[in-house]
Amino acid sequence: MTDQPANDKPAASFAEIRAVIAQWPGPDLPAGTLAAAREGQLTKPPGALGRLEEITQWLCEWQGRHPPRLDRPRVAVFAGNHGVAARGVSAFPAAVTKQMVANFVAGGAAVNQLCRAVDAELRVYEMALDEPTGDFTRGAALSEEECAHAMSYGMMAVEPGIDLLCLGEMGIANTTSAAALAAAAVGGAGQDWAGPGTGVAGSALANKIAVIDEGLNRHRAHFKDPLEILRRLGGRELAAIAGAVIAARLARVPVLLDGFACTAAAAVLRGIDPRALDHCVVAHVSAEPGHKRLLEAIGKRALVDLGMRLGEASGAALAIAILRAAIACHTGMATFAEAGVSGKDA
Amino acid sequence: MTDQPANDKPAASFAEIRAVIAQWPGPDLPAGTLAAAREGQLTKPPGALGRLEEITQWLCEWQGRHPPRLDRPRVAVFAGNHGVAARGVSAFPAAVTKQMVANFVAGGAAVNQLCRAVDAELRVYEMALDEPTGDFTRGAALSEEECAHAMSYGMMAVEPGIDLLCLGEMGIANTTSAAALAAAAVGGAGQDWAGPGTGVAGSALANKIAVIDEGLNRHRAHFKDPLEILRRLGGRELAAIAGAVIAARLARVPVLLDGFACTAAAAVLRGIDPRALDHCVVAHVSAEPGHKRLLEAIGKRALVDLGMRLGEASGAALAIAILRAAIACHTGMATFAEAGVSGKDA
Repeated sequence: MTDQPANDKPAASFAEIRAVIAQWPGPDLPAGTLAAAREGQLTKPPGALGRLEEITQWLCEWQGRHPPRLDRPRVAVFAGNHGVAARGVSAFPAAVTKQMVANFVAGGAAVNQLCRAVDAELRVYEMALDEPTGDFTRGAALSEEECAHAMSYGMMAVEPGIDLLCLGEMGIANTTSAAALAAAAVGGAGQDWAGPGTGVAGSALANKIAVIDEGLNRHRAHFKDPLEILRRLGGRELAAIAGAVIAARLARVPVLLDGFACTAAAAVLRGIDPRALDHCVVAHVSAEPGHKRLLEAIGKRALVDLGMRLGEASGAALAIAILRAAIACHTGMATFAEAGVSGKDA
Repeated sequence: MTDQPANDKPAASFAEIRAVIAQWPGPDLPAGTLAAAREGQLTKPPGALGRLEEITQWLCEWQGRHPPRLDRPRVAVFAGNHGVAARGVSAFPAAVTKQMVANFVAGGAAVNQLCRAVDAELRVYEMALDEPTGDFTRGAALSEEECAHAMSYGMMAVEPGIDLLCLGEMGIANTTSAAALAAAAVGGAGQDWAGPGTGVAGSALANKIAVIDEGLNRHRAHFKDPLEILRRLGGRELAAIAGAVIAARLARVPVLLDGFACTAAAAVLRGIDPRALDHCVVAHVSAEPGHKRLLEAIGKRALVDLGMRLGEASGAALAIAILRAAIACHTGMATFAEAGVSGKDA
């Protein structure tokens, strides 16, 4: 179930990635118009299905077709290790990243059960777990080549035929990295973005905040360049998520983003194009406090708020059920004319 | 698919209903303890699945078993007509209630698609649609016998073998009735509880508020008795929902409540027993503004907030997917020991 990086595949450079973003597509507005027209004829008061109606239109606009389909949703979980884990920022040891990948492969993790419940395909992408990134308090987490390679690896998750991409991650210490990314991308300091992650509190949380601030101070001169933020403070799995977001845009595959780390990785792209996440919906708002703050900063409203804070695409996989419900209503409901139901103020 | 009332079935009296409530069961705490014990061993940080974990425990406590099951969820939609519809409180004509029941039977409504999406059984209960209740501004909506009969009819939705009951309603003008029930049960006036319903605004909304206040003023002397509130200001479908909530408690069937009208009908029972809704979860918070206020008043937090305001159990049916996800994680995940994953601070 895990995919190893294809080492013979040429990594994209930052210049190539910027060139791709400069010409990626916008929404398919005619497809969205078709969705809205049908929505208005269905046997319900106008707008009565709320966000289900918005979801349908969004799926049409980014799949570029009406009606939308959800025949082959893919859940992609990227796993990476972080040098900064050595600084004691997580409640779990770094070895857990690899152990959890084995758990994904064996089918024992939450995301396995959630994918089965919504009939989604799960792919796990293990990214050089024996080579953690550099500790970002001492230097850049990744070289440009490593970062671009990780992004191009993430792009490979967008294979022909998939019609939805759910993104998630596994990486001990990566809420520390995500907090640094968020601070660099939208402003603020460690205390604004650090949270318990897998469960740090008290002096351990204070240490996590200090580590984030160390990283921010070291790399601050480069914050004008989003890809520099990503390589200096991110990680392989986070760069892969950014790459997957780009590839999905190009392939007209709508994206469900999972929690804090996933959203932070994707949000970096807004520094290149403010509309970079228009084809993405945030599946859930994590209990990790930085996520809510980040969603406010990037103007996204999550589909659900269930106090989850697990990562591994668990919230995104869960939210597939809501997308399926939206499509089922839009495609299956009768119109007023078909059902012989009187309209409003009839 | 619709069920006609069994006219030969003796209606329960209010006295019998009160006697039943006086001795209904509480939660099965040992089953909940088993759920919590397993939850702590699963391969995730403690509490990382948030409300999914709460849902599992709640299902165990009210199904009275561990693990919980969701093999046969039932979605019950009760439909009734309201005399107060003649006062111009709805954007749709009263004939739409019957037309929508036909749409449910034909499979063309939103709830049909949502039930299919989550593999739930849909039952529609048509309640004397040609005999609307009395206009509550002129007298009681229902006699005690009619109300008790409607409640006992609702109880019939709880058949042996079902393991979850989703409740919803269809009834033109019933947000007016629900607003009156909410005001009588938890306080406030028409303007606090009236909303657009299927789409009234401006002077039509002002009229709706005035009609609610007329009803409240006429019946205020009886607000100390919850069942009197229900019969004077409610409707057949709303009384049936209250009855179904009672029967579900007795049969150890957890309940998902839908939107404003459904919650208002159920909330009346809290006047008899403050813990009357402990076996109920509110599936979603409706865009109908009274629902949010009502949830605050009764101390319930909805599972999702998707801006839906359709009724007909649509939000409750949708939320079945979240319950399925919760059970899938709880029953299918590996423990730390099984997966060989290091625990916290290992």
